[in-house]
Amino acid sequence: MVPLNMLDIPYTVRATSNIAFIKYWGRRNHDLNLPYNSSISMTLDESLSTTTSVEFSSSFKKDMLIINGKKQDLSSQQNEKASYIKKVLEQARKIAGLNAHTLVVSKNNFPSGTGLASSAAGAAALSLAIVKALNLDIDTKEISKMARQVSGSGSRSLYGGIVKWHRGTLHDGSDSFAEQLFDADYWSGLIDLVTIVTESAKRVSSSKGHTLTPRTSRLYDLRPKIAEAEVKEAETAIRNRDFNLLAEIIMRDSNNLHAVCLDSWPPIIYLNDVSRAIIYTIHELNENHGKNVAAYTFDAGANAHIITTQKHRAAVEGALSSVNGIKRILYSKQGNGPRLLSDDKSLINDEVIRHIGIYKY
Amino acid sequence: MVPLNMLDIPYTVRATSNIAFIKYWGRRNHDLNLPYNSSISMTLDESLSTTTSVEFSSSFKKDMLIINGKKQDLSSQQNEKASYIKKVLEQARKIAGLNAHTLVVSKNNFPSGTGLASSAAGAAALSLAIVKALNLDIDTKEISKMARQVSGSGSRSLYGGIVKWHRGTLHDGSDSFAEQLFDADYWSGLIDLVTIVTESAKRVSSSKGHTLTPRTSRLYDLRPKIAEAEVKEAETAIRNRDFNLLAEIIMRDSNNLHAVCLDSWPPIIYLNDVSRAIIYTIHELNENHGKNVAAYTFDAGANAHIITTQKHRAAVEGALSSVNGIKRILYSKQGNGPRLLSDDKSLINDEVIRHIGIYKY
Repeated sequence: MVPLNMLDIPYTVRATSNIAFIKYWGRRNHDLNLPYNSSISMTLDESLSTTTSVEFSSSFKKDMLIINGKKQDLSSQQNEKASYIKKVLEQARKIAGLNAHTLVVSKNNFPSGTGLASSAAGAAALSLAIVKALNLDIDTKEISKMARQVSGSGSRSLYGGIVKWHRGTLHDGSDSFAEQLFDADYWSGLIDLVTIVTESAKRVSSSKGHTLTPRTSRLYDLRPKIAEAEVKEAETAIRNRDFNLLAEIIMRDSNNLHAVCLDSWPPIIYLNDVSRAIIYTIHELNENHGKNVAAYTFDAGANAHIITTQKHRAAVEGALSSVNGIKRILYSKQGNGPRLLSDDKSLINDEVIRHIGIYKY
Repeated sequence: MVPLNMLDIPYTVRATSNIAFIKYWGRRNHDLNLPYNSSISMTLDESLSTTTSVEFSSSFKKDMLIINGKKQDLSSQQNEKASYIKKVLEQARKIAGLNAHTLVVSKNNFPSGTGLASSAAGAAALSLAIVKALNLDIDTKEISKMARQVSGSGSRSLYGGIVKWHRGTLHDGSDSFAEQLFDADYWSGLIDLVTIVTESAKRVSSSKGHTLTPRTSRLYDLRPKIAEAEVKEAETAIRNRDFNLLAEIIMRDSNNLHAVCLDSWPPIIYLNDVSRAIIYTIHELNENHGKNVAAYTFDAGANAHIITTQKHRAAVEGALSSVNGIKRILYSKQGNGPRLLSDDKSLINDEVIRHIGIYKY
């Protein structure tokens, strides 16, 4: 199925991170990465992006993965992420009827493992690059399912603008995919001030938390129902461009998620004193405005995403300047989703191949 | 009813704080201080105590309250605690058939408003001192209901050892009282290392939280049921002197409470980075022992109570010594409950009365 001329040519995709307004926390199926609840996110622009090059070649001795310059062993059972990637590669090769090994080289322009959804951008870039490299005839909805298997939230990074990941109800995951709700122009004023508090890796990976929390938190029973209701509310708030309402939904969802994390056993605590100071600062800012002009939201880490509008960017940055412990603030508009890069942007070249010692010819 | 010779004589009671193993958070009736769930606590020894002197006199111009040397206006509508005290005083005077004003002078030996349950000790001392001063013929169960109206957890400080506060189901609160489950000798090895992280007042009073959380936290719906189940489990664990089990129940209840606080709107966050370091340290200590030898629990503040046994005190103190930011550690055994002090310990004398300007012939 795959034309021979697709082999030995690296394809390179840049995908961006996304910030969930209504978050994914807890999976009902570990192997397929199926969530207990649907989620909604805003795709970020290339301020937080991952670039991934993929090449299939019958001359490679084995599958190889290089992330941020580090070799990852794709055959390791220890490395959960690697086994997910391996599975997606095998699915794609099966569809393509291809028997060739794969080299994946990926690079973030922001720190990974710190709750900045590096794995989401990576999963989206990888999935699209695989599809391009194999010239597979599948649509974005199907690609979002591939990405989902590598990183749940990665399914949402296949689209720009505002994206919904449907939880689905089927056991095989075939109805658990992402779709775009609104493109990046629908409410272009929406921005994310990514407020970096720490660049060190988190103590508990989100992958571990997705399993631990549903199994141990007694409060988690209510979380899926709460999140599903919020997804509906958030969609309406976005449709009406009602920032005051959207902000409350975003902040309460973040707090709700971190509450069930704290209720897990052993407890998972991502927020620190700087996160807390940011929370109080945003509440105070909103009180001073008599309405919500900004919303904080935290993924699996202490770093804050402050969702606001272009109009209030300066006010938010002013308020945040009073918080000690903020390292830097990245500014991101809504992104347009992943894109194929030209060959000269490839991360795979002869030098790389020599350096990593993957034999070719 | 009250013999005239009871007037003009100060009665002085010392009561101690308690640390809840299963906590009270959320009241179903604000005026009567009726909780959504029962709770269990260990009464502390006099390391954390409140001494309260009460005098009734027909020569006082008005009711007066002095806490830690500061005059509190008992007629103020702003001061919730004052209005509770006023109510209890009026109930007691009504029972006694007495028409005289009251002077209350109270003093903590530890900082108040920092989640160290100063109000519990104060409420218990006040209630018992009133009953003694008026020579009322009511039992401790009834006195616990008086204390409950001033401070919910205060009901539990009327007894030593391990105490249960029954939530009750009646609207008038007549079945919401405390009782002793086990005296202080039943499991005398149980101790509390009160780990002071901050002595500054908390941002949100527990009184405010008791109302805010049930009204706004969507996860709170499950809290009363969880806590009631824990009360039963904890009672069994204590009966069996099963520290490993008790410790897990204690830690999970604390996390559960702080989770519903975080889920409140606006969020209530009591734990800080030092609290979190203590949590991790205790988990690590327990892992190293292959069983739970210590349990952390936090009331409405960042200060930790580390429940452990005499046997493991040194190991716990050793582990805590690695945590930066701990100011001091108070050691408390189980206390025996409140006691009447001799006249020479009275906080009320002519000088005090002159100083506060309450007129007395």
